[in-house]
Amino acid sequence: MNAIASAAQSEYLYGRSLPRHFYTDAAIFEADMRFLGDTQWWLVDHSSRIPRAGDYFVYRFGAESVIVLRDRNQGVKAFYNVCRHRGSLICLESSGHAKALTCPYHGWTYDLTGRLIGASSMPPDFDKQAHSLRPVHLQVESGLIFLNFTDGAPPSFDTFIARHRPFLAPHDLGSAKVAVQRHYRTKANWKLVVENFLECYHCKPAHPTYCSVHSAEKLLALGAGAGSSAGDLSAQFERDLEQWERETRAAGHLTGMFGDGIDAPFFQGTGRMPIKPGHLTESINGTPVAPLMGAYSTYDGGQTAIGLNPISYVLASNDHAVMFLFSPRGPLETDVIATWLVRSDAQAGRDYDEGTLTAVWDITLQEDKTITENNQLGVLSTLRAGCSLLARETHQRLRCLVHES
Amino acid sequence: MNAIASAAQSEYLYGRSLPRHFYTDAAIFEADMRFLGDTQWWLVDHSSRIPRAGDYFVYRFGAESVIVLRDRNQGVKAFYNVCRHRGSLICLESSGHAKALTCPYHGWTYDLTGRLIGASSMPPDFDKQAHSLRPVHLQVESGLIFLNFTDGAPPSFDTFIARHRPFLAPHDLGSAKVAVQRHYRTKANWKLVVENFLECYHCKPAHPTYCSVHSAEKLLALGAGAGSSAGDLSAQFERDLEQWERETRAAGHLTGMFGDGIDAPFFQGTGRMPIKPGHLTESINGTPVAPLMGAYSTYDGGQTAIGLNPISYVLASNDHAVMFLFSPRGPLETDVIATWLVRSDAQAGRDYDEGTLTAVWDITLQEDKTITENNQLGVLSTLRAGCSLLARETHQRLRCLVHES
Amino acid sequence: MNAIASAAQSEYLYGRSLPRHFYTDAAIFEADMRFLGDTQWWLVDHSSRIPRAGDYFVYRFGAESVIVLRDRNQGVKAFYNVCRHRGSLICLESSGHAKALTCPYHGWTYDLTGRLIGASSMPPDFDKQAHSLRPVHLQVESGLIFLNFTDGAPPSFDTFIARHRPFLAPHDLGSAKVAVQRHYRTKANWKLVVENFLECYHCKPAHPTYCSVHSAEKLLALGAGAGSSAGDLSAQFERDLEQWERETRAAGHLTGMFGDGIDAPFFQGTGRMPIKPGHLTESINGTPVAPLMGAYSTYDGGQTAIGLNPISYVLASNDHAVMFLFSPRGPLETDVIATWLVRSDAQAGRDYDEGTLTAVWDITLQEDKTITENNQLGVLSTLRAGCSLLARETHQRLRCLVHES
Repeated sequence: MNAIASAAQSEYLYGRSLPRHFYTDAAIFEADMRFLGDTQWWLVDHSSRIPRAGDYFVYRFGAESVIVLRDRNQGVKAFYNVCRHRGSLICLESSGHAKALTCPYHGWTYDLTGRLIGASSMPPDFDKQAHSLRPVHLQVESGLIFLNFTDGAPPSFDTFIARHRPFLAPHDLGSAKVAVQRHYRTKANWKLVVENFLECYHCKPAHPTYCSVHSAEKLLALGAGAGSSAGDLSAQFERDLEQWERETRAAGHLTGMFGDGIDAPFFQGTGRMPIKPGHLTESINGTPVAPLMGAYSTYDGGQTAIGLNPISYVLASNDHAVMFLFSPRGPLETDVIATWLVRSDAQAGRDYDEGTLTAVWDITLQEDKTITENNQLGVLSTLRAGCSLLARETHQRLRCLVHES
Repeated sequence: MNAIASAAQSEYLYGRSLPRHFYTDAAIFEADMRFLGDTQWWLVDHSSRIPRAGDYFVYRFGAESVIVLRDRNQGVKAFYNVCRHRGSLICLESSGHAKALTCPYHGWTYDLTGRLIGASSMPPDFDKQAHSLRPVHLQVESGLIFLNFTDGAPPSFDTFIARHRPFLAPHDLGSAKVAVQRHYRTKANWKLVVENFLECYHCKPAHPTYCSVHSAEKLLALGAGAGSSAGDLSAQFERDLEQWERETRAAGHLTGMFGDGIDAPFFQGTGRMPIKPGHLTESINGTPVAPLMGAYSTYDGGQTAIGLNPISYVLASNDHAVMFLFSPRGPLETDVIATWLVRSDAQAGRDYDEGTLTAVWDITLQEDKTITENNQLGVLSTLRAGCSLLARETHQRLRCLVHES
Repeated sequence: MNAIASAAQSEYLYGRSLPRHFYTDAAIFEADMRFLGDTQWWLVDHSSRIPRAGDYFVYRFGAESVIVLRDRNQGVKAFYNVCRHRGSLICLESSGHAKALTCPYHGWTYDLTGRLIGASSMPPDFDKQAHSLRPVHLQVESGLIFLNFTDGAPPSFDTFIARHRPFLAPHDLGSAKVAVQRHYRTKANWKLVVENFLECYHCKPAHPTYCSVHSAEKLLALGAGAGSSAGDLSAQFERDLEQWERETRAAGHLTGMFGDGIDAPFFQGTGRMPIKPGHLTESINGTPVAPLMGAYSTYDGGQTAIGLNPISYVLASNDHAVMFLFSPRGPLETDVIATWLVRSDAQAGRDYDEGTLTAVWDITLQEDKTITENNQLGVLSTLRAGCSLLARETHQRLRCLVHES
């Protein structure tokens, strides 16, 4: 890994993407998994998926399988889905309910805290306590479930989440529920998927729906226009943003942004911006798609964009939120998991329509899947010059987020 | 290979399975193939599949393809299914009948002893005798066909088979025929498949049918109960076994067991045990499924379990036998081939019913396929602790076989 | 690559095929691609596929994708189908028409000469001229489009093509059009595909249709008979050939042959021979299948066989021609692309029937696909002796072509 990191550093050109093999090589992918697993808190799902003690879901990345469950004390816990006896998968379904976790192979049984409570016929000196399920570091914040996969001490969760708390607070995602979850399995390296998500230079050519939903001036500022290269917000967008921020603060709602430099440990960037003049929420026509959430009693037309680390994001409007996880599965495959959240008492059919709720991002993520897969096909070429540009617009996106309100 | 073997030794912990990569790595798989190919006699099929001169079948493992045929002197021979000219496969079907073996590419023709007898247009100095098909070492014992793939001198077949002759004799498998042959293609490394077959600790959670067919006390003794860990047979099973052995010997039938230690060249273990009180044969309800075979004129309710090497087994009841070959196809794929044998004059429909004959093991092998594939999925995890237990119960199984009658 | 070439040399035995890994290994395949790409001119298609300015097709090999198009000056140009910005594929369809090439990802737009003419929002100092599409060396001769993939100076096209010009001239392929193009995707290494195409020793056992179309004496001379080994043409074929050559020359048509030794840079071999007494063209029954082409006002019953390099061939009869490209796609996969050419004013249905036109080679190439895939399966065996014969008949084929008229 050190050799790889060092190679990456020496081969890296500012404003350009990494050399080809960083998007294709299996050994680098394994190093990536270890690095991301050790250093990041991964947003894997929402606690509303497992409301009762014994509810569980299985999260997969790379070659790993993890059980996330609710225990009898209403805590959420995570364990590798690998029996300590012979290494079999324990939970074979993607979600379910269980009083205890019993391996289908030899019947070893673990309680909901991971302790081995049943292992028939083992000798008298067998130490059950030494054979608990291997835990995965887990934290829950506002209903968001985060995992870290290091064998040692995980990075400080407080440091990781502290700056986001004020941005998360008004949306009260802890009182939300999962309305819809969809997977967009993408045949591309996770870095291409993330780079695509972090820039909006492609929005105009590739995302007509997304562009119709958001203000053209903002998209220009975010990298779809002149501002993307110059690093300056357009005067028009500056005025719009300032006016929106004044009104929003006057209504008692949060505004502002922050963003990390490229050397920050989590590479975070978060802030609030208006969606588009006249649009109340991030829906096809800007009209509400679900009951107002959290502290919002009126629409301020803003969107809270939360970037937690390169693979974990939340976009929250006043009436719904979308979580994004870019879950690496292999050197050339990434599972893009989008999860739409609404107020926990909202009822499908009555308070929200799944199609209307998901339209903007369902369309956009399908487009992203196509363009990212075509990007990967081009990157697989061994003969092309290794000189594609990347970071300019991504960097711009980050600089934009750094804009202080 | 020495490096791998040495790594295996240094990384091996008594009572535990090998490190992860021994179940996943392609280079280790190739080394395994060479090692098993050089040192073992593989039970690949039964001679009744090729009764007439010119009958052949093709046996595949790893990337290899082998022709096994009956020649004009009623001998059985084996050759690599690779033409000496340009390396094409010669026999494309899985079995058939041929007066000579003609390569479909350029028409080179070999007689049934592998000699090149036709190669049109070769120059006068071309030495046909130097271009015979490459033979594979072959031995037939009681109708069982064994192959060894070494380039040099194979291990002594007499040493390999000697201790099994008395156990094979009463079943007279040389007068048997193949009634049914089925493949259970399993997405798992051959070592996981074998480890699964060698232990019965999983029988109770995973094989309800198998457990209903065999005596609970015996299964406990074999590793499904307290005895599996302590290494001791239960008093109840000791009594049952001794009584059955007395009766069986009184009836003039063979009893007894033997088993190899872990350092033995073939890792063999063989013996006879009663199936279950009141059960005459290994069928769903214990009643006969085919005519009595060989020396048996009455049922003694025993089963002869023959372990020839880690990938080759025979289980023989009084009225039928099942051959098992765990044929490695790739690092993550094994072809489990089960072959049911009955007396050669038995007729399907009249003397046996295929469904009834195969029920116990067909159900059990399908279950084994599922649990072994889930085991492999867990073993693929790179982050889990490398501490799964294995050998305790397998070892127990072997110790049990060592029990002297 | 030097190590590989050196290994190849040291492991190569005259008259025998290369060691197994040269037909299976991924690293050797990549070295092959670089070597063939640098040193050869690849015949990829016919210019009639792109008659108008803006017409394009995409040619793929290995992991590469190349756009071949007609520009506004009626020139034909080729570019890597990889955007200079982020490396996305630009043209996603296999052929089409475009006024300019616009990348679907970020909308960067290139004119038909590959110059970047649109890249929105880039900073003032951005140098568009430094971001033209990367060109691929291209030459057109008699409508045949050739590519070379070196980064440096390509081999002399004039040297490459000079000796073929007189053979191409009478067929006037520059006035031809593509009637049919078919892909025969073959699961085999490109070397096995080429070796198969270069020898006719397999014709008799494997190609009954092809053998019914060509004179038996010629096929013997080409390697299907005694002559293949002795290196001598049969007296009968010598007489037939001489007589045909006299008549053909008397009618004012070209005859003759040439062929390279094994050390020549392009390994070329080209010549004219009669198809079969009484056969006018290479069709199932020897009767015409399309209007006469080029300089031919009567049938001379000859076939011009043009070998441009190991992966590029043309077979031209008086009334049609077939181009063959053996396009490597991976270590174990080759796309065999056959393109049937007829006179440009010929109309399907009226002047030619697709089935009749393509019958001989469609049947033959399907047979070749089968035998080559079975050859690859045998070559994948790791245990067989590495002693298959190759070059004897291939070499003979080349010697035959060297025969001076």
